[in-house]
Amino acid sequence: MSIARKSGLPVKRSRFDVEADIVVVGGGAAGLASALFAHWQGNEVVLLEKADELGGTTRKAAFWYWVPNNRHMQEIGIEDRKEDCIRYMARLSRPEAYDPEHPTFGMSQWEYDSFAAIYDNASPATELLAEKGALEYRHCDFVPDYWAELPEDKAPKGRVLVPKGARESMSDGGEVAIRTMSAKARADGVDIRTGHRVQRTNVDESGAIVGVEADTALGTTVTFKARKAVIFASGGFSHDVDMRKNFLSVPVFGGCAVRTNEGDFVNIGAAAGAQLRNMNYAWMCPIVLEKALNDDPSLIGTFSPSGDSMIYVDRNGRRVTNEKLAYNESAQAFFTWDPTKSEYPNLVLVAIWDARSQQYSASDEYGRFIVPEGKDDGHVIKGDTLAELTSNIRARFKKYANRTGNLTIADDFEEALKSTISRFNKFAREGKDPDFKRGERQVQLLFNGPAAESPAAPNPTMYPISDEGPYYAALLTGGSLDTKGGPVTNANGQVLNHTGRPIRGLYGVGNCVASASARAYWAGGATLGPILAFAYLAANAASGEPRR
Amino acid sequence: MSIARKSGLPVKRSRFDVEADIVVVGGGAAGLASALFAHWQGNEVVLLEKADELGGTTRKAAFWYWVPNNRHMQEIGIEDRKEDCIRYMARLSRPEAYDPEHPTFGMSQWEYDSFAAIYDNASPATELLAEKGALEYRHCDFVPDYWAELPEDKAPKGRVLVPKGARESMSDGGEVAIRTMSAKARADGVDIRTGHRVQRTNVDESGAIVGVEADTALGTTVTFKARKAVIFASGGFSHDVDMRKNFLSVPVFGGCAVRTNEGDFVNIGAAAGAQLRNMNYAWMCPIVLEKALNDDPSLIGTFSPSGDSMIYVDRNGRRVTNEKLAYNESAQAFFTWDPTKSEYPNLVLVAIWDARSQQYSASDEYGRFIVPEGKDDGHVIKGDTLAELTSNIRARFKKYANRTGNLTIADDFEEALKSTISRFNKFAREGKDPDFKRGERQVQLLFNGPAAESPAAPNPTMYPISDEGPYYAALLTGGSLDTKGGPVTNANGQVLNHTGRPIRGLYGVGNCVASASARAYWAGGATLGPILAFAYLAANAASGEPRR
Repeated sequence: MSIARKSGLPVKRSRFDVEADIVVVGGGAAGLASALFAHWQGNEVVLLEKADELGGTTRKAAFWYWVPNNRHMQEIGIEDRKEDCIRYMARLSRPEAYDPEHPTFGMSQWEYDSFAAIYDNASPATELLAEKGALEYRHCDFVPDYWAELPEDKAPKGRVLVPKGARESMSDGGEVAIRTMSAKARADGVDIRTGHRVQRTNVDESGAIVGVEADTALGTTVTFKARKAVIFASGGFSHDVDMRKNFLSVPVFGGCAVRTNEGDFVNIGAAAGAQLRNMNYAWMCPIVLEKALNDDPSLIGTFSPSGDSMIYVDRNGRRVTNEKLAYNESAQAFFTWDPTKSEYPNLVLVAIWDARSQQYSASDEYGRFIVPEGKDDGHVIKGDTLAELTSNIRARFKKYANRTGNLTIADDFEEALKSTISRFNKFAREGKDPDFKRGERQVQLLFNGPAAESPAAPNPTMYPISDEGPYYAALLTGGSLDTKGGPVTNANGQVLNHTGRPIRGLYGVGNCVASASARAYWAGGATLGPILAFAYLAANAASGEPRR
Repeated sequence: MSIARKSGLPVKRSRFDVEADIVVVGGGAAGLASALFAHWQGNEVVLLEKADELGGTTRKAAFWYWVPNNRHMQEIGIEDRKEDCIRYMARLSRPEAYDPEHPTFGMSQWEYDSFAAIYDNASPATELLAEKGALEYRHCDFVPDYWAELPEDKAPKGRVLVPKGARESMSDGGEVAIRTMSAKARADGVDIRTGHRVQRTNVDESGAIVGVEADTALGTTVTFKARKAVIFASGGFSHDVDMRKNFLSVPVFGGCAVRTNEGDFVNIGAAAGAQLRNMNYAWMCPIVLEKALNDDPSLIGTFSPSGDSMIYVDRNGRRVTNEKLAYNESAQAFFTWDPTKSEYPNLVLVAIWDARSQQYSASDEYGRFIVPEGKDDGHVIKGDTLAELTSNIRARFKKYANRTGNLTIADDFEEALKSTISRFNKFAREGKDPDFKRGERQVQLLFNGPAAESPAAPNPTMYPISDEGPYYAALLTGGSLDTKGGPVTNANGQVLNHTGRPIRGLYGVGNCVASASARAYWAGGATLGPILAFAYLAANAASGEPRR
């Protein structure tokens, strides 16, 4: 059940319905971890979640978590020096400003401090969660960073963990983590209330934040006093259409964040005087166009573009990108801008595959668009021949043209597609893709997905597309996992005002606040590892606030 | 003299140093026009300017102004229907959402209303300014819209005006406009105070804005009561490094806005509860890299990339764009993102020309990088041979590598450049550029700039580059004229809060507030025409406010 947004300016209030030391807003990993850490510091904690159940975007995630210099790396002797790790983070976050000789690698002090905080705290946070039984993990020593080949990556494998109880494919890590973290929070006595949408903060005479007001699905408003602090952990703005348009650097149609991620804290924080930062950036991934246009809550980013006999082509039937790029990078291909025509020519690309990939690469994990029989395949376009497929692709483009800036496929699409397939098939037979270097990096193999056994194929990411149908297609676009912008915090999670000073009593963690990562997706779990670090820092700092 | 930013939350105040009906903040075209319109409605008006002199970015501009359906078009019979004009604006503003069949062409109501307000009010505003002698104009019937060839442009010529007293090349329109508008404002009794940086607003018990507080270079604070309203017209955030990084969709090094455009109203407006919009967009233009890196206040955007025997090449010595694209579009070439390398490969491009272009295409107007002898040419790299030029280009890249993400030129730059020149020269001789279609659109001829007479050259934008030196080069990057984001206003210029309601007493006009134009640069003067329309609307609406 949804509760309408009525966010407003902070208000003063002398009486509250509920009191606690610390009020946490949001019931995904950031909120649950903040609540647990705060509770373990001896605080009374209330956790408010807008949805009817806990989990947020985390529940939809695989919950890999990127933990630099983690305990296992230390035990097995993988060196991960702080300076090296920060250098890697800096190189990818703001490539245009990276300076290897500079004391903060060309980053601002805020960025540098944020990276240092991640390095220093992700592991202690992780260990504490494990030790307390809230989130045990296993080490994924085979998983490379997404830029493992960069000379700046001195520890290309070893930083990724996953919840211990996750299945072998690791795709259900989020469900496992939410189950164990929320069970622990309940067992420890965190006061958890779902169906509460926080709409505004309360301030005292001194301007400190001392509580929040939440609306419920019943239409009531419940007020919560926070003696020490409020910690927002309420997610990004992936599902607020206006905010996407007004802030993101590219025109995404949606993302795989949970539908309740509507940017509440951008408004609530700004109204409380917070400075906004990195509003232009998002954690990016390709997505199935139609799921986004239809606001399908099951939408998952295409993290693993499975299929070896599979290519992406543009509206002209030509390949324009390496289909196997890591998702954050792959998503950029859709936003190529043509300044000579004033259009995004690649806003929609078409994945095309044959019966082999359909048979062997179908899966309902990791947002794959090749789905098994019996699963929802409303997004799959079929054709017994390339001619029929083309005709059906054309019709599908037309169906959505009024929402894609009138994208249509070229008249000679089929002919161009045939020539594209012939060229790709040659590459596949040779195992080399001189056009886009498909399959040449570790991360591309990591996410290659299930495929038919083909010991003779020289490159496991490529196999010739069959001369015979049936053929399949899906329309893809670029989307967000979730956004990276919001109120800016210091390394202790304190929200800062326009003069750079903390707004007393107000903290933020996770996708609802600014991430210094900017352009970067350092590795699988680059979202959740830092989130746990900042939850740990924010809870500890909030715990040290005086009771008001 | 600069006055430090100390912007803060609105404060209450019972006594003020100065009182007026309407306080206008900013002394460029938006502020002067707002002040004049408000004065002519019978209001006492104070105008506050941060710098020591009036003019803002306007003074640096050519001050073309785009006025749809203007009086001259009507007189000479150029039809410019409202629906057609809005359609053209919509098509270019949000190409990914444009829907020709939709009642608002796929735009939001806010966007549509904004475009309609421009169409309806730019001409009345212009006529009133002319009639009162504040800003007389002449009609530029030969100047095409920047997208004159689009089928959506039903009035491709006729919408552009320029101040009457501007020189024939029209480059000094801004100086003329500031001179005549400020003379009129002074003559009419507008209370103009320079050297006043507004830092915050004042609110009354009801939450209405009733004044502002300004710091002066002497360190004093002067308070101004606004009985009816405050109109901010204080420019964008081109020169606030953090805001650029946090909001713009691309990493620009700077822009040609006046140095005092530091985003004051983003902070002041947000602190007053304003909703921010279109923070990701800017009016774009190529700029000379070194002028931006050196914070050179004389920086002007490269509006006219003069030189026929002139090309742009990338770090590999290859052409990557049409050098003569209109500036807003040309600037995009620098921000091509390479997701496979995590870098902006074209962040710096090199303009290269020969003695012919140096001799005949040099000029100190319109931000041309080919400047006449005796003018500041610190940005020009020279070489008697291509080998020497290459070596000097290499050195210049190195000098700035710590600020460009370590961009260097390729080892085989010289060799590649030779082959690029040979290919370009063939195109020039044939008059056709199949790679980038140079010179094929009207706007490219409009901005081609001075050139040697060459009646036999089939394409006046291209001429073969000489086999013999001397050669010249300049490093270019993409920049902003100024930014497009800020507090959102309705069509009356009223600043809106997070629930979409006006903040009483608070108005905004020009680059300090959100422009619905988003991606678009419809034509020369697409900045100033709409600014005059919104100054007119805001002044009229503010004039109708009750005295508080």
